[in-house]
Amino acid sequence: MSGRLTVIGLGPGDARWLTPQAEAALATADAIYGYGGYLDRVPIRPGQTRHSSDNREEQARAAAALGHAASGATVAVVSGGDPGVFAMAAAVCAEIEAGPPAWRELDIAIVPGITAMLAVAARVGAPLGHDFCALSLSDNLKPWELIERRLEAAVRAGFVIAIYNPVSRARPWQLGAALDRVSRLLPGSTPVIFGRAIGRTDEHVEVTTLGAAKSIAADMATLVIVGSADTRIVAREGRPPLVYTPRAAGGADA
Amino acid sequence: MSGRLTVIGLGPGDARWLTPQAEAALATADAIYGYGGYLDRVPIRPGQTRHSSDNREEQARAAAALGHAASGATVAVVSGGDPGVFAMAAAVCAEIEAGPPAWRELDIAIVPGITAMLAVAARVGAPLGHDFCALSLSDNLKPWELIERRLEAAVRAGFVIAIYNPVSRARPWQLGAALDRVSRLLPGSTPVIFGRAIGRTDEHVEVTTLGAAKSIAADMATLVIVGSADTRIVAREGRPPLVYTPRAAGGADA
Repeated sequence: MSGRLTVIGLGPGDARWLTPQAEAALATADAIYGYGGYLDRVPIRPGQTRHSSDNREEQARAAAALGHAASGATVAVVSGGDPGVFAMAAAVCAEIEAGPPAWRELDIAIVPGITAMLAVAARVGAPLGHDFCALSLSDNLKPWELIERRLEAAVRAGFVIAIYNPVSRARPWQLGAALDRVSRLLPGSTPVIFGRAIGRTDEHVEVTTLGAAKSIAADMATLVIVGSADTRIVAREGRPPLVYTPRAAGGADA
Repeated sequence: MSGRLTVIGLGPGDARWLTPQAEAALATADAIYGYGGYLDRVPIRPGQTRHSSDNREEQARAAAALGHAASGATVAVVSGGDPGVFAMAAAVCAEIEAGPPAWRELDIAIVPGITAMLAVAARVGAPLGHDFCALSLSDNLKPWELIERRLEAAVRAGFVIAIYNPVSRARPWQLGAALDRVSRLLPGSTPVIFGRAIGRTDEHVEVTTLGAAKSIAADMATLVIVGSADTRIVAREGRPPLVYTPRAAGGADA
């Protein structure tokens, strides 16, 4: 018995961001587990079974996939973006730690992908061009007070902030509260980027400022980047502006 | 005249991480600019010119590429990893801001890539599975005091830290100083990962602890991930350990 489980990053919506490694791993799987919206992006192959589950059932999905792999199958679990960033790779590791000893004997592989913040950043220039952090705004898995503390620490230290999971149906107020929090520490002119459904046909990217950010709509498919005091907007006539954070900071020369 | 400049992320060394979008952008360029080590990874195509420069000449390279594009050519600038993370996209944006008005009229595109921290994380599990930051340890472009302040803020707030540019010939002591700094705030048992030449034939990944990290060799091709107090190591008999940061933090349940 030589079960194998591969956690695969599909990247954001555009198939041109799917790496050859991910493509190859998808092609050799006996079974694919994932959130329905991600499974829909994987071409159907004869002989391959598909196991769709809701996007709030990550731990149960990881356990089911591990159990399946332990039967000797080659199993894939798919994530949008990168599986290691607020996604399935951590859920799989946690289930291996908590699960039966046989799961530790499985051949486990993680296939990285383009994570949303890199794709959104690429659309507008280089807002993540210097020190930055990635923070999930979901308070399903951590207390809201911790999120506020991390936001404040990141801003005070001068990090650009990529905000994942800014809003969901069950969490309508968190993004507004986060923007209020950082507004106490950063000027209203600080660049903010909203990237929605990046790489999909309904993609929408908006460059705004912290002062105006609360009027921009966001949902589960949105990634928000809040600039630092160093982040700059370069206006271009007849073209969208470029947003970038210089490679030099704190008074050093480029 | 319709000059075009595309900044392309090649991903880490393994060609299976080069996205189809990057592949296509490379194929259509009239000229390719980059650090020699990255240019070596791009197949030679007839009719395409190649412009190699040292890895400390980013601004001059960006300016040369923009000037070439402004003559009407389709120009590519290549970066390892993702071009928006401590790489060429910010250098290009800065030159556009400072340069002649014609450069703002160019068609500019950024092609994202797998950045090193995602590839290193994938090799060991999911150390970036929860809130994290990415910090360059190079004090060529910012004061060392700012780097120490950011390290300390990140640790105090509970972020995992991905350290880019930990060491170079001209910067031999910075990584040791950084590890000392975080050792004052985190237990010696905190997981630390050294990923060197990831995706290349001489790849070497080492999972260690903060207490033992100073004895591990690092160089310009190394990326270091310092876990948070939540990061866990899962031992596996006959297999390398898994390292992951749980999706839940601060006492919340998974």
